[in-house]
Amino acid sequence: MDFNIAVIPGDGIGPEIVAEAQKVLDTVGKKFGHSFSYTEVDMGGVSIDKHGVPLTDEALATAKASDAVLLGAVGGVVGKDSWYDLPPHLRPEAGLLAIRKGLGLFANLRPAYLYKELKGACPLKESVADAGFDMIIVRELTGGLYFGERKTEEVNGVMTAIDTLKYDENEIRRIAIKAFEIAMKRRKSVISVDKSNVLDSSRLWDKVVTEVAKDYPEVTLTHMLVDNCAMQLVKDPAQFDVVVTENMFGDILSDEASMVTGSIGMLSSASLAEGKFGLYEPSHGAAPDIAGQNKANPIATILSAAMMLRYSFDLDEEAKAVEDAVQKVLEDGIRTIDIMSDGMQMVGCKEMGDCICERI
Amino acid sequence: MDFNIAVIPGDGIGPEIVAEAQKVLDTVGKKFGHSFSYTEVDMGGVSIDKHGVPLTDEALATAKASDAVLLGAVGGVVGKDSWYDLPPHLRPEAGLLAIRKGLGLFANLRPAYLYKELKGACPLKESVADAGFDMIIVRELTGGLYFGERKTEEVNGVMTAIDTLKYDENEIRRIAIKAFEIAMKRRKSVISVDKSNVLDSSRLWDKVVTEVAKDYPEVTLTHMLVDNCAMQLVKDPAQFDVVVTENMFGDILSDEASMVTGSIGMLSSASLAEGKFGLYEPSHGAAPDIAGQNKANPIATILSAAMMLRYSFDLDEEAKAVEDAVQKVLEDGIRTIDIMSDGMQMVGCKEMGDCICERI
Ligand SMILES: CC(C)[C@H](C(=O)O)[C@@H](O)C(=O)O
Ligand SMILES: CC(C)[C@H](C(=O)O)[C@@H](O)C(=O)O
Repeated sequence: MDFNIAVIPGDGIGPEIVAEAQKVLDTVGKKFGHSFSYTEVDMGGVSIDKHGVPLTDEALATAKASDAVLLGAVGGVVGKDSWYDLPPHLRPEAGLLAIRKGLGLFANLRPAYLYKELKGACPLKESVADAGFDMIIVRELTGGLYFGERKTEEVNGVMTAIDTLKYDENEIRRIAIKAFEIAMKRRKSVISVDKSNVLDSSRLWDKVVTEVAKDYPEVTLTHMLVDNCAMQLVKDPAQFDVVVTENMFGDILSDEASMVTGSIGMLSSASLAEGKFGLYEPSHGAAPDIAGQNKANPIATILSAAMMLRYSFDLDEEAKAVEDAVQKVLEDGIRTIDIMSDGMQMVGCKEMGDCICERI
Repeated sequence: MDFNIAVIPGDGIGPEIVAEAQKVLDTVGKKFGHSFSYTEVDMGGVSIDKHGVPLTDEALATAKASDAVLLGAVGGVVGKDSWYDLPPHLRPEAGLLAIRKGLGLFANLRPAYLYKELKGACPLKESVADAGFDMIIVRELTGGLYFGERKTEEVNGVMTAIDTLKYDENEIRRIAIKAFEIAMKRRKSVISVDKSNVLDSSRLWDKVVTEVAKDYPEVTLTHMLVDNCAMQLVKDPAQFDVVVTENMFGDILSDEASMVTGSIGMLSSASLAEGKFGLYEPSHGAAPDIAGQNKANPIATILSAAMMLRYSFDLDEEAKAVEDAVQKVLEDGIRTIDIMSDGMQMVGCKEMGDCICERI
């Protein structure tokens, strides 16, 4: 089969890690008889430098015309990169928000998994790390405070800023369905996180998720308040299978969960639209401090490419081959610097990509 | 001196823990020559049962007329207590929001401190726990999503819910000043947490906090995004001295920080108005499952009473005497069940109160 992938290298370490993921995809293609073609698309700082905006209409159209999007990372350093002298809607991160909205990527899947081999990096104490954990956070990605109306204005001589948190039942229903569908393929537990003791949007969230749950009698639904969830992720991450939550809570909790694994360089993500289309990117950022030094860990991006094979191309076996190769590399003691520990062999970004390709 | 304290026992373990804090205050009074008089006020579930609402106007007026308020905890169990069959504005927690707004308690101070004696309870690995940490989260408490306009309505046949996140420069300035004043008495570092890459309210927050910082040249101000802060609290809590943030972010982050200490039964809080007035309560909830069993840990409430002595009554020496007595009790190996470990002596709620009184 032939697949057309829009590739967005982006800023910082983006180009390096994306190159390794493409190498892995090509190896999969050769082995399983698929062909992947790539169209490069500018986004973020690199697009500002070339076109004056973080995402052009043409770039969005190219991404839309592809079968799936592979993204490295966007962004630089506030106070250092001149991109941040621009008004907010022209900064690198605005490209990310524009592509999410423009491609209708309403479901962000963020797995947080503790690799046995990387337990030492987990910031939690051994008794917790030993138990392991394996959760997936399903974050609503095109609604809420991120895309509500906002304004800053003087009211009676006082500067006042307003953001709006808006959800309708359809937006909630489709993300809830996504979460339950994923739970059916996992341990059949959904924890829905909100702040229903304060917010109207959370009460609607609560109600709609509870309705959707009726169509999945095998799945256990639990409601959890966001402040409690922030505690439970630290106290007992093993209790979570699928977590579903709105955009801003999902931003905070998925990053917290990533850090609880201790190896954010390993964590992939998928942002899905209705149907099969999706954008795939590592959970970590552009890490400008180590860009261009062959030091970045490409595994999160490679695992994101594996998610692309599974979710957008229905290539389960191929996805599994990539995931197994990553597992094998860890077992073989090969590490980039961010996950390095005593007695392991340290390699660069490129070499890590090669080692994974060899094991496919 | 004579002080008039409004006491709100509330629900669950509230009455037990508040009784121990009063015992401690009376001991302080006797030793240092002050007299504390108490007026009991209903709030939460207990008020719903008696008066049909979680906070009556009279209760609010009594609280307002006092020199300070001591609160136990409010709330029950959703799906079990009939309070939760009521509309949101009549549920127990609505009393908490009403008293915050009614008394103008805009500054919530939540210390998160790792006691050397309770290191074993810290969920983080030893290398992190050994370094220790000692932070105070300064949460804005009367603005943002908690008190913005909200509505749920059908729009073209689709149920839609909206909450608003609003801040004006004056609200931001006064909480920022509070944070910097506190930092001046501590390690002179303020980390301001927002989501300025998305929210207008965060950008205004950022700007006003930066302005306020100019009046405190000795204090280092750092800006941190909320998602990053959720990670850093787990990764390296020792980096934080004073954290200042808006209401909802503060709710999430202060609970996360509490859990990082591993002993939420030890954590006090103060909610301050302009001037000296304040409400003092433990960081933990009403724990209905252990209510009335003499099992609760009264230390968080006792330490909250110590904060009352310091912040509302300017009785620094007296506050220190209480804090030292708590420290002594821990050194002496006395523990309630929630912080129990091998070789320690387990006591009930009442006995813990007695032991602390003996050491004042
Ligand atoms: C860069 C920022 C706007 C973005 C977000 O908040 O969604 C990032 O934190 C993420 O989680 O992808
Ligand atoms: C009970 C709830 C409304 C409250 C809040 O969110 O402020 C609580 O979580 C707190 O932090 O005091």
